[in-house]
Amino acid sequence: MIDLNADLGESFGAWRMGDDARMLDVVTSANVACGFHAGDPSGILETLTAAADRGVTVGAHVGYPDLRGFGRRTIDVPPADLTADTVYQIGALQALARAAGTRVAYVKPHGALYNRIVHDDVQARAVVDGILAADDSLPLVGLPGSVTQRVAESVGLSFVAEAYADRGYRPDGTLVPRSEPGAVLHDADAIARRMVGLVVDGSVEAVDGSVVTLSARTICVHGDTAGSVGIAVALRSALERAGVTLSPFASAAA
Amino acid sequence: MIDLNADLGESFGAWRMGDDARMLDVVTSANVACGFHAGDPSGILETLTAAADRGVTVGAHVGYPDLRGFGRRTIDVPPADLTADTVYQIGALQALARAAGTRVAYVKPHGALYNRIVHDDVQARAVVDGILAADDSLPLVGLPGSVTQRVAESVGLSFVAEAYADRGYRPDGTLVPRSEPGAVLHDADAIARRMVGLVVDGSVEAVDGSVVTLSARTICVHGDTAGSVGIAVALRSALERAGVTLSPFASAAA
Amino acid sequence: MIDLNADLGESFGAWRMGDDARMLDVVTSANVACGFHAGDPSGILETLTAAADRGVTVGAHVGYPDLRGFGRRTIDVPPADLTADTVYQIGALQALARAAGTRVAYVKPHGALYNRIVHDDVQARAVVDGILAADDSLPLVGLPGSVTQRVAESVGLSFVAEAYADRGYRPDGTLVPRSEPGAVLHDADAIARRMVGLVVDGSVEAVDGSVVTLSARTICVHGDTAGSVGIAVALRSALERAGVTLSPFASAAA
Amino acid sequence: MIDLNADLGESFGAWRMGDDARMLDVVTSANVACGFHAGDPSGILETLTAAADRGVTVGAHVGYPDLRGFGRRTIDVPPADLTADTVYQIGALQALARAAGTRVAYVKPHGALYNRIVHDDVQARAVVDGILAADDSLPLVGLPGSVTQRVAESVGLSFVAEAYADRGYRPDGTLVPRSEPGAVLHDADAIARRMVGLVVDGSVEAVDGSVVTLSARTICVHGDTAGSVGIAVALRSALERAGVTLSPFASAAA
Repeated sequence: MIDLNADLGESFGAWRMGDDARMLDVVTSANVACGFHAGDPSGILETLTAAADRGVTVGAHVGYPDLRGFGRRTIDVPPADLTADTVYQIGALQALARAAGTRVAYVKPHGALYNRIVHDDVQARAVVDGILAADDSLPLVGLPGSVTQRVAESVGLSFVAEAYADRGYRPDGTLVPRSEPGAVLHDADAIARRMVGLVVDGSVEAVDGSVVTLSARTICVHGDTAGSVGIAVALRSALERAGVTLSPFASAAA
Repeated sequence: MIDLNADLGESFGAWRMGDDARMLDVVTSANVACGFHAGDPSGILETLTAAADRGVTVGAHVGYPDLRGFGRRTIDVPPADLTADTVYQIGALQALARAAGTRVAYVKPHGALYNRIVHDDVQARAVVDGILAADDSLPLVGLPGSVTQRVAESVGLSFVAEAYADRGYRPDGTLVPRSEPGAVLHDADAIARRMVGLVVDGSVEAVDGSVVTLSARTICVHGDTAGSVGIAVALRSALERAGVTLSPFASAAA
Repeated sequence: MIDLNADLGESFGAWRMGDDARMLDVVTSANVACGFHAGDPSGILETLTAAADRGVTVGAHVGYPDLRGFGRRTIDVPPADLTADTVYQIGALQALARAAGTRVAYVKPHGALYNRIVHDDVQARAVVDGILAADDSLPLVGLPGSVTQRVAESVGLSFVAEAYADRGYRPDGTLVPRSEPGAVLHDADAIARRMVGLVVDGSVEAVDGSVVTLSARTICVHGDTAGSVGIAVALRSALERAGVTLSPFASAAA
Repeated sequence: MIDLNADLGESFGAWRMGDDARMLDVVTSANVACGFHAGDPSGILETLTAAADRGVTVGAHVGYPDLRGFGRRTIDVPPADLTADTVYQIGALQALARAAGTRVAYVKPHGALYNRIVHDDVQARAVVDGILAADDSLPLVGLPGSVTQRVAESVGLSFVAEAYADRGYRPDGTLVPRSEPGAVLHDADAIARRMVGLVVDGSVEAVDGSVVTLSARTICVHGDTAGSVGIAVALRSALERAGVTLSPFASAAA
């Protein structure tokens, strides 16, 4: 049993991003932008409504306040501000989800914020505090073995480990940095094979050829290009053929 | 029995606006900015916490997305966008209110949006739809006799009539436009006398000397200048001396 | 002799809009976004550099401060603010143009601002004042017969009359509103024929079949969809086949 | 001979910051916000006009795009974006300065950007490249001995060394970090005495009592609080009494 998640609701005003309708037919969980790194209220509402129509679970994809940089630029947000920013984004999405007939079922940080709290205790704690203040029943999705996981579990917040379908892994289970060879995989078949292996065997081949044990309850796929949608479709098919049940880790039921 | 409301939480980042702490000792309801015309998440959270500490009821002060214009510039926001913007702002404030140990108990539009929906059916309906979608139990504060009131009541949304402490009235019960003489009152004693009369007799003297019947459950006071805080303090004292009970129209209890 | 102009530089951060490279091979003048309704500094700089490489003249496409609405929502910006906003946008583009080895050669307002000053004296005057303050040698592109033209010429600012390739005209020379039949033309051949007629005969067929005299020094074409790029390409070919010289109304030379 | 500079034009919309009118009577150079960390076009224009009226030289106070954080939060802006952001801000201010009858005579980075380029080669080079592209005659104000200085001088950009009136120095000439004792001085007399010593002797007493040689052509004073304006006034008086000529390092003449 595994969950597939993708980033959705990332259009902004007149600007389109990705193909939310197609991706909602592939994934079981949708990380929906909250207006800080991407998304505007009416566009977010459309995506949430489409997710609700298909029974796809939605999560709050909280980010740095940085439309210009699409949330991909690290910002030294002081912890009290980051906590309040997290609460604000979760709450905004919760009300839009109610309007769409669904509910926010988890939180996944976006982009530079996601990467920062892999190793930064202060910002990790600030995000966790924001989730606790908004709704302490919401699980937090992140990288297994990260500071994110340690901080979440230290205060009793549920943590959901995530694997990346198209990223290379190092022998220690961390991701190959994007600046190094092997960081991103492009072959749909290879990606599908790896992820079936991950779900069935609990391991993937690392960039050096060794086998690394990896436990994940959800796999992140991308849908921002036509090619990435194709990879996601192929991965879903391969998982189903291998007898894996696709199922969200949290229920969409309000 | 009457409620006093004021606009609070309107600082932004390094910029201060008003004296929230002093005004929270005067009012029974706080219209708290939601980040669109003013307010940022951590500053809003501080104001909400201070309101919760004093048992002051809080409402969502929704506005146009216009920090530069402080929500005072009319914007032709299409209705679907305005509805989603309203849901977003209410939801963001609801989560921050939970974090502060209180709850959003009503909605009051701000500035140009407030004035627009006094006469504009389309935007009024869009705001009302946003409240219904976010939480249909939230009363909407507005001008008695306005399109706002008519639209709210036509769909069963609770409406709370509001009077302005420092504004002149025309014989038909509408406000004297700011461009005309008598639009704004500055004398604290005269303001206090008028409002005691409003509460006790249900009427105020219009700008032409006639008496206009006016029914209001809440009085709006300002706190953005030292002078306006003084007027609010004097008004509260005068009301209490006249035996009027100051009481919010909605409970702060979560 | 005629000029072809199009709106370019309208991407924002991670979001793409239009195909600037292809359109720069079609037009002789590029209306480049200035960051208020669209565009960010590094993306604008790329577009300006591509325009400079091809010898395409660039103009400042000033707009309302409204990324969310792409400058298509009317905003009641007070005149002093609108004047300063105009100066700011022109100046920002001028420096980016210098960095790209070209210069800002004209000003064309965008979207809702363009439409507003067709009939609004106060905002028209505010925009004209901004151009005069920034650089009074810059011509202003607008609708012939508009308040824009009247206000510009009343203070000695050069005005350039513009026709729309894909819009229907009423017998009085104004555009058919988008809410009415015949507002937008979609057939590339018909559009090309009309515009050749406009340049050669100084007239187009109005929506009611009558002939309307129309004088224009520049024709606006669109490039935001694949279809619109095709129409622009076809129009350019038709004009060249008809012996019309395509030439900017202002020189790109710094 | 010395220059006094201060940060001005930092109000935003309805929010006030500092007392620009009083500070313009004290300083010889005004670092004027460009709309990224603070300032809006019409407010900036007012400050520039007031500076022009008094003959105070103005510089572009470029910052990170971060109104919420007032430019005090480090952002990992990629160098191409930072260069274009710098060009954009300088150009916007140049046009507003023309509208006000003056000119931009130098560039001084603000807040977190200023501090970042004290030690970060990549961002320092990006800012310097932006200045060169916008106007390579504009001197850059910064901390003596910084990476800023080294990078500027390596490409032939004029550099102006700056001292801080109210900051403590370490024996090596760097500032005492704000987290340590002695970082900020509050006594107006002591500050004035130190700065007279700096100008006359070219040295100040470091935090450990040793004497540190310091060469500066301009002294930064603050004006954001009533207390800081008082310190600036006292410093100017002390310098004048000591026979020091107050004179900008760059001319305001257009």
